[in-house]
Amino acid sequence: MRARDLAEDFPTVTLTSDAMRAAQAMAQARQPGLIVVDERGRPHAVLGGSQVLRFVIPAYIQEDPPLARALDADAADELCRRLERSTVRDVLPEPQDRDELPVVDGDATALEMAAVMARMHSPLVAVLEGGKVIGAVTVPRLLDYLLPAAPTTATP
Amino acid sequence: MRARDLAEDFPTVTLTSDAMRAAQAMAQARQPGLIVVDERGRPHAVLGGSQVLRFVIPAYIQEDPPLARALDADAADELCRRLERSTVRDVLPEPQDRDELPVVDGDATALEMAAVMARMHSPLVAVLEGGKVIGAVTVPRLLDYLLPAAPTTATP
Repeated sequence: MRARDLAEDFPTVTLTSDAMRAAQAMAQARQPGLIVVDERGRPHAVLGGSQVLRFVIPAYIQEDPPLARALDADAADELCRRLERSTVRDVLPEPQDRDELPVVDGDATALEMAAVMARMHSPLVAVLEGGKVIGAVTVPRLLDYLLPAAPTTATP
Repeated sequence: MRARDLAEDFPTVTLTSDAMRAAQAMAQARQPGLIVVDERGRPHAVLGGSQVLRFVIPAYIQEDPPLARALDADAADELCRRLERSTVRDVLPEPQDRDELPVVDGDATALEMAAVMARMHSPLVAVLEGGKVIGAVTVPRLLDYLLPAAPTTATP
């Protein structure tokens, strides 16, 4: 079983994608992040969901989250509307804050994907064919393949 | 809408849970992590999926993932079986490597949860009632609540 066989569709956006639609895609796919590709489909970054929240939530509230209770629903809507006026490029951290990318070739083995996720503390790897992103493998997907089936009565 | 209303079931284990069953529970729930509680149900840690992989994959392969291609499926099985001989406590990083926990009270607002996730770069917050974990809210769950519904023709 190779990476190309385990890869699943994963929300993928470009640097110029509308940030609101990107965040909505993440929510709809119930995934913890997005893969950002350049205009040629090559991987540029993985945008984690918490980064979207870092963009939306003012720094003084991040530093003291209970302060958020002073804001009403209208204020929350206004904060989120910042995404409507932004692109994915705006939401990404500065390049110097980004790590090496969690990517593997389509012929990577399951253990190789596990090693990349482990090394980079990443919940997913993007899978490439010919340098372009064809999907991703998440940690639960990989564990489901690597580990023996749980007994049906399992209570962890 | 408060944290207790948005909280969903989330795989929760104790320090003495069998590590293999814990990893299987993460895979089955298709979640990027587990909440670890102490014997009284109080939050102890969030165990990310990549940490399980760091426990399983030898350091020399983490440092050079393509080396994993030299291992066959039997070797992969043997590595994973290390989980059968371990508890969740064994898999957790050393306490000094752990951050403050991503937890909120049941009456936290959506923005407060967003602020905690943003501050801690966390893909989820555990929700507490009376000091005990009652569930969790993930980033996509929170974005789904906070953001306006996407137009059905949306292509991000």
